[in-house]
Amino acid sequence: MTLTPEQLAEIAEARSETKATLRATAEGMEKHLYVAHEVLDHGLVRVIDYMGDDSAITQAARVSYGKGTKHVTNDEGLIRYLMRHWHSTPFEMCEVKFHVKLPVFVARQWIRHRTANVNEYSARYSILDREFYIPAPEHLAAQSTVNNQGRGELLQGEEAQRVLDILRDDATRAYDHYEDMLSQDGQKGLARELARMNLPANVYTQWYWKVDLHNLFHFLRLRADAHAQYEIRAYAETMCDIVRDWVPLAYGAFEDYRMGGVNLSAKGVEVLKRRLAGETVTQENSGMSKGEWREFEGVWG
Amino acid sequence: MTLTPEQLAEIAEARSETKATLRATAEGMEKHLYVAHEVLDHGLVRVIDYMGDDSAITQAARVSYGKGTKHVTNDEGLIRYLMRHWHSTPFEMCEVKFHVKLPVFVARQWIRHRTANVNEYSARYSILDREFYIPAPEHLAAQSTVNNQGRGELLQGEEAQRVLDILRDDATRAYDHYEDMLSQDGQKGLARELARMNLPANVYTQWYWKVDLHNLFHFLRLRADAHAQYEIRAYAETMCDIVRDWVPLAYGAFEDYRMGGVNLSAKGVEVLKRRLAGETVTQENSGMSKGEWREFEGVWG
Amino acid sequence: MTLTPEQLAEIAEARSETKATLRATAEGMEKHLYVAHEVLDHGLVRVIDYMGDDSAITQAARVSYGKGTKHVTNDEGLIRYLMRHWHSTPFEMCEVKFHVKLPVFVARQWIRHRTANVNEYSARYSILDREFYIPAPEHLAAQSTVNNQGRGELLQGEEAQRVLDILRDDATRAYDHYEDMLSQDGQKGLARELARMNLPANVYTQWYWKVDLHNLFHFLRLRADAHAQYEIRAYAETMCDIVRDWVPLAYGAFEDYRMGGVNLSAKGVEVLKRRLAGETVTQENSGMSKGEWREFEGVWG
Amino acid sequence: MTLTPEQLAEIAEARSETKATLRATAEGMEKHLYVAHEVLDHGLVRVIDYMGDDSAITQAARVSYGKGTKHVTNDEGLIRYLMRHWHSTPFEMCEVKFHVKLPVFVARQWIRHRTANVNEYSARYSILDREFYIPAPEHLAAQSTVNNQGRGELLQGEEAQRVLDILRDDATRAYDHYEDMLSQDGQKGLARELARMNLPANVYTQWYWKVDLHNLFHFLRLRADAHAQYEIRAYAETMCDIVRDWVPLAYGAFEDYRMGGVNLSAKGVEVLKRRLAGETVTQENSGMSKGEWREFEGVWG
Repeated sequence: MTLTPEQLAEIAEARSETKATLRATAEGMEKHLYVAHEVLDHGLVRVIDYMGDDSAITQAARVSYGKGTKHVTNDEGLIRYLMRHWHSTPFEMCEVKFHVKLPVFVARQWIRHRTANVNEYSARYSILDREFYIPAPEHLAAQSTVNNQGRGELLQGEEAQRVLDILRDDATRAYDHYEDMLSQDGQKGLARELARMNLPANVYTQWYWKVDLHNLFHFLRLRADAHAQYEIRAYAETMCDIVRDWVPLAYGAFEDYRMGGVNLSAKGVEVLKRRLAGETVTQENSGMSKGEWREFEGVWG
Repeated sequence: MTLTPEQLAEIAEARSETKATLRATAEGMEKHLYVAHEVLDHGLVRVIDYMGDDSAITQAARVSYGKGTKHVTNDEGLIRYLMRHWHSTPFEMCEVKFHVKLPVFVARQWIRHRTANVNEYSARYSILDREFYIPAPEHLAAQSTVNNQGRGELLQGEEAQRVLDILRDDATRAYDHYEDMLSQDGQKGLARELARMNLPANVYTQWYWKVDLHNLFHFLRLRADAHAQYEIRAYAETMCDIVRDWVPLAYGAFEDYRMGGVNLSAKGVEVLKRRLAGETVTQENSGMSKGEWREFEGVWG
Repeated sequence: MTLTPEQLAEIAEARSETKATLRATAEGMEKHLYVAHEVLDHGLVRVIDYMGDDSAITQAARVSYGKGTKHVTNDEGLIRYLMRHWHSTPFEMCEVKFHVKLPVFVARQWIRHRTANVNEYSARYSILDREFYIPAPEHLAAQSTVNNQGRGELLQGEEAQRVLDILRDDATRAYDHYEDMLSQDGQKGLARELARMNLPANVYTQWYWKVDLHNLFHFLRLRADAHAQYEIRAYAETMCDIVRDWVPLAYGAFEDYRMGGVNLSAKGVEVLKRRLAGETVTQENSGMSKGEWREFEGVWG
Repeated sequence: MTLTPEQLAEIAEARSETKATLRATAEGMEKHLYVAHEVLDHGLVRVIDYMGDDSAITQAARVSYGKGTKHVTNDEGLIRYLMRHWHSTPFEMCEVKFHVKLPVFVARQWIRHRTANVNEYSARYSILDREFYIPAPEHLAAQSTVNNQGRGELLQGEEAQRVLDILRDDATRAYDHYEDMLSQDGQKGLARELARMNLPANVYTQWYWKVDLHNLFHFLRLRADAHAQYEIRAYAETMCDIVRDWVPLAYGAFEDYRMGGVNLSAKGVEVLKRRLAGETVTQENSGMSKGEWREFEGVWG
């Protein structure tokens, strides 16, 4: 990522203006405000604003639980209880706004999470920058032979080089032509809303993305998961680190119950109970399909 | 409204703790934080937290408009442009969290606005307070004779008194019985989740309600409107005053384009054009139904 | 429940008009259309319309999976795969519209599920019927002594009788007064939007509720759960029976992975692995709180 | 658009299977079911399923209005009333599911409408077809000189030809390279989720898109508008024709109140009243900015 000196100056300036507020503040989050966290080769995640902290979750829950909360003596216990029992609304009481720079094919996955607010840089209105995602060699993988939507072995040698050359050359040529078509030098210049169609899906776009903590956790559970495509996972992991600093108790509960948790089907519960009772269970007598059994074994051996 | 001394002390304490933050702050909103604004006889609206200010709207829009915004030279012009052209996402970049105490029948209308986050005090878990909404005499109105869902003349004298007596007596008795059924004095005591069913719709509940500015404007347009039921309008108007202090530019645009604006149908446009051309148009040759014409005349004479 | 002869005639008439369509139809759902399924003492659930069937789920998924689906050879396998891996969008491709008559305190829980479309009978516009929910003796339970939001033992004898008398008498009186206030006989008559505030939370309301299958499953998982309040669970269970007839494959997957499934935390996974390895794990060395351990033992012994 | 013989056969087969149903049917919509409406050069819109008709709107509204509707004597009057007064929930009671094939840059605008259900063809899982949008000469326009996000004059002669050549050549080359990178002939073959990043934004994708009528009207109001980009407007206009056949009364109200309607600001109302009173109002004494006045004059002269 290469922030321009102007952009770096703007960030430094934003971080220099401390204001007084009566609102809840989260120390761990203040240190992230405006700072550009690099992701991929030209991408970034920046926290632009946030609302609430761990206490905001329990404060809201205690309106909904009122005088009855005396038995849950501390925030952590209550937050863990709420997470364990799928109470979503208290976590919706925290909100965060990110500035994200990301390749278009990542943006297309990301936007499928509908419960968020988005303002994207408009390529109808403005001209996109000449920046494209080119995978690092350690992410240049072959199609998986077992997973229709995943990666397998790394590409090597000549094949890897050829792919990188193609991606770089095609992106460069596409952008050169984008500029040529837009140019008003000796010609009218194609409308921006049309010219953009020549740009490939690895061009970078950017947006402001604002989301509540419940929906952010949902996003992170799916996108920081090992099955998510590497490129979006890189963003999700950066955001996990930020959220851990922001709401450490809620993040701890999220890690225990969601990221590190396991969903068992009724069949899975029964198999585990049989195993605990000493029985040897195989796929054949488990009632599970081969695919299910493979996933089950992946966790339980 | 009667806040307890403990509640007043909690509010005073919350307002005494100034913290440092790098986030955007809105002076006009800081003064509202935590303060209880009285609504109806026992209700309240309090701002618990907020995110963003007028600049947050244009800042987000400028990501989406990028380098192209040089012709809109100031925040107000851009905010008015965005409002006029129904751009909703920049206004979604501001967020506010309220604590509201309100009668259940108002809560039932309010909750129909789905794009918000809510944590309500749980009457399964806790015991509701003995507080009921009893209309002031100037709001005790007869059924409208022209509007199936509105109010007409004020009730007077004996009829008004009888209504107030009924509302007060029935609420008191219902609450006495609620307590009797819950009591564990010499009996098991009915489950709270069942006992609550005896309470009337004017009992007060409370919730935390968090919403973005775009959806808040939508709520205010419908609920601060003259056709809204008075009791919810009272809350909406209190919130209008708060929002004006928070984001004065956005609120100004909202007042001009939404609250004070008028939607004309294609037929309405045509009638006005005929009138501007000097023609006298009547309902009969307007193409409008009687109801539409009555509403049209209400604005245009 | 007592449907009027007019209502029964309307239902019979609606069921008598068979039309031709090219759309997907679900045999199992056609038999439910318009029929009133009784719930509680005066409530009902009726299917008014539906869109899609099991095949509509896989058909939509196969757009998203395109030519790659050849390895998932049948609808059931694919539906189970989608459910297991939390793919929500294919299940959103089915939609159902219910007519529901339900007590207001149930409606207040229900409406918290925001991702649905609702048209409720308006008590601003119309007069509510004289119908109240009075629990059957087998549902008249004391407050739980272990669960702050649940029921414990049944009420017996005199206490039970006193509760039933209170509920019945207060509802009757409240409705009598509602009618008295509304009456235009020798008086102006209070506005309907005000008079309704005297009615208790066990009065019946009704609405049209339309939802997609994914969000319906979410609703059913929470509301057909043993921890849901009995009165809303009664509706959810009726709807489970209907959905089983509508989309049997999807419902089967839902039962296995959601209703009968178990969520294990990272700590829970570790405890089970230690147990499978022969270790005796207690709460003290489990890393779980007492509450968590109690819930864990509830499933695993 | 070129449907394959197999696809045409599938459509013909789907249209040949008439089934019996007790549900509401819309004659005008049955004729559209499954049929491919061509849009742009390779795009299409197909109706896959629908729920409800004009009567479903008033039927739902009458639950919410109950016995009070006797004064609105017909469906059309009620539907127009509901549209005029921004009642959204009755229109949410109709639902439609489309199959759409569209260029990626159009899909990126479209997906911003969040209140809809989508299943998109997955380029992680499957291989995209070799189909790209190339504008017809009559849509190949220069950047507007007055509107930062619009088109101006048509491109002519050599400049037009050069643009078309670039778009065609770059798309062809990008797709050739996409295939080369995917190929497992003598190499491992790049993962599909990576290879797709080389494809430009005019490549066609497809999805199932399901939406309720209220949100569809919102989409159509914005996207069938003259200010929408031509390419998405082409889809919106095709859908307008379909919706007119489906729910003619609701569509008529939509045309009158939304598509053909005008929103006046408070300032605009005042200017019109002054004009109606005979005054000559200019931008200078209107209180409007130049931009606003230009838009105002665009309607009112």
